[in-house]
Amino acid sequence: MNYLALDIGGTKTSAALFTGEGVLLETSFKTAATETEKGEEAVYETARALVQAALDSAEGGARGIGVGSPGPLNREHGIILHAPLMGWRNFPIVQRLAADFKLPVRLDNDGNLGALAEGRAGVAKAVPNLVYITVSTGCGGGIIADGKLYHGAHDSAGEIGHFSIDPQGPPCPCGSHGCFELYASGTALLDKMRLDMKAGKQSLVFKLAAFQPEKLSGRLLDQAAAAGDEYALSLYQQEGFYLGAGLANVFNMLDPEVIVLGGGITKGRHFFHDKMMETLAERCLRKPAEDAVRYSVLNDRVVLYGAYFLIKEAMENI
Amino acid sequence: MNYLALDIGGTKTSAALFTGEGVLLETSFKTAATETEKGEEAVYETARALVQAALDSAEGGARGIGVGSPGPLNREHGIILHAPLMGWRNFPIVQRLAADFKLPVRLDNDGNLGALAEGRAGVAKAVPNLVYITVSTGCGGGIIADGKLYHGAHDSAGEIGHFSIDPQGPPCPCGSHGCFELYASGTALLDKMRLDMKAGKQSLVFKLAAFQPEKLSGRLLDQAAAAGDEYALSLYQQEGFYLGAGLANVFNMLDPEVIVLGGGITKGRHFFHDKMMETLAERCLRKPAEDAVRYSVLNDRVVLYGAYFLIKEAMENI
Repeated sequence: MNYLALDIGGTKTSAALFTGEGVLLETSFKTAATETEKGEEAVYETARALVQAALDSAEGGARGIGVGSPGPLNREHGIILHAPLMGWRNFPIVQRLAADFKLPVRLDNDGNLGALAEGRAGVAKAVPNLVYITVSTGCGGGIIADGKLYHGAHDSAGEIGHFSIDPQGPPCPCGSHGCFELYASGTALLDKMRLDMKAGKQSLVFKLAAFQPEKLSGRLLDQAAAAGDEYALSLYQQEGFYLGAGLANVFNMLDPEVIVLGGGITKGRHFFHDKMMETLAERCLRKPAEDAVRYSVLNDRVVLYGAYFLIKEAMENI
Repeated sequence: MNYLALDIGGTKTSAALFTGEGVLLETSFKTAATETEKGEEAVYETARALVQAALDSAEGGARGIGVGSPGPLNREHGIILHAPLMGWRNFPIVQRLAADFKLPVRLDNDGNLGALAEGRAGVAKAVPNLVYITVSTGCGGGIIADGKLYHGAHDSAGEIGHFSIDPQGPPCPCGSHGCFELYASGTALLDKMRLDMKAGKQSLVFKLAAFQPEKLSGRLLDQAAAAGDEYALSLYQQEGFYLGAGLANVFNMLDPEVIVLGGGITKGRHFFHDKMMETLAERCLRKPAEDAVRYSVLNDRVVLYGAYFLIKEAMENI
């Protein structure tokens, strides 16, 4: 029998059926905008309808539902505690889905499910110790230790974005200062571009955006870098430096075999990879292996795959 | 039957017998200076003689030997790869002890054994997720995840002293920049005192040391702080700040129930504890519980206790 995976993201929500062998049934894949501005009931209704549509697409139903969501959340009680992007507070997602579909439901956060997916079926398959880091709007992550997802005491392990790399640095909305995501996230890159454009720096990327701050994007930065624009290339060098320094901290603290990098930033990997690896090698206690840093292969579907493994492994242990 | 625990430290080496119930037989406790300057064979001979003396102190021998040493080391092959303090390189400690005593031998590093000891019998007994951090000459540590020691891919997890808190900071002998131990270790405090004394700053601690750099010590700093000396108190405030910021990183990354602080620095806890907890609360994603930071109760014997649990649990699993 199949398993149902649901990925509730800040922008898109997706649902799909997977076979017990881990094959995503393409015809069951359903996706829609999350429309967070409409409030939590509307977001839930979208998710519910996608789950129903995915279930209706194939014979035989599903053994259970795995759900991925931004955190923080409480796995035991199946509650999304606080997802500012979605306006959710203490939303009992597991209870709601279980009542609507009469199926077992399991919940985990998107960073953890990214780690689970890449460790079970992705670029770090069967690697016992791995850390997944997603670098996009913010930076999140998940930890697999000795083959199992490591959640910590309150399901909040793996908050790699909020590892401070400068205690005296700028304040972060989380309350700390100098958090990693203030330097390395896509948002950090955009903020830097906006400031530099305002300051009158010269770059092709500013021309491509017609000098309008809201038009600046990672895509345009890649375009400028590909054309050899000095400013764009230097921004990626800086990104490589911060990623390398951040990954060195993770290697020194957790000594994983592999770190998997995911998220939008990886589209520009050709422009930062060498600098990242050079910085990492300099700053790591143990020189990491050539293939110790890998790029996510499951991409946009990584949380969906993770949600599948979550419910499948939970059902096998019942 | 009893178990033999051996702690080979940079300054002292100790051996003792423990009963299967975890009682250290005081009459079996033997200790001597490590005398690292005499070379690796001399250091080994001291350790061997202490083990023999401990075994001779009671009837019935031991079921096995647990060994704690500074790292890095290779547990599987029982080799201390590189202990600069001891001048050891690729020393096959497990093989040597096994040959000399015809007993099973297990090896782990002192930071990990600190975590194991405090989690099994100390101030974090039965806590599933804990991190032990020792702050003395350097900063080391160990991680218990879901009740088990977490070693990572190459036995080098838990190198908390070498997570960088300033990628642009001063170079560290490890190759990185701005490592935590450059700010928070006892060595960092001593270096700061020496610089400030040279720069002509005023403090009771400089008077107590008769203005001789080599006489400056943590003990004198405590003495000055206890007398209300402003400089000494400000140094401890700074220590509290760096410890708090460093612990926030560990909580955000690993979400343990408890962090146990050990090492010489904890003797000055009265002067830095409030500042540390205040900084931690500001900088942690989840406000940590009142008792989330605890001080080691096993103190100087923490590695010895850890070595006992190491061999005991290994023998029970054979």
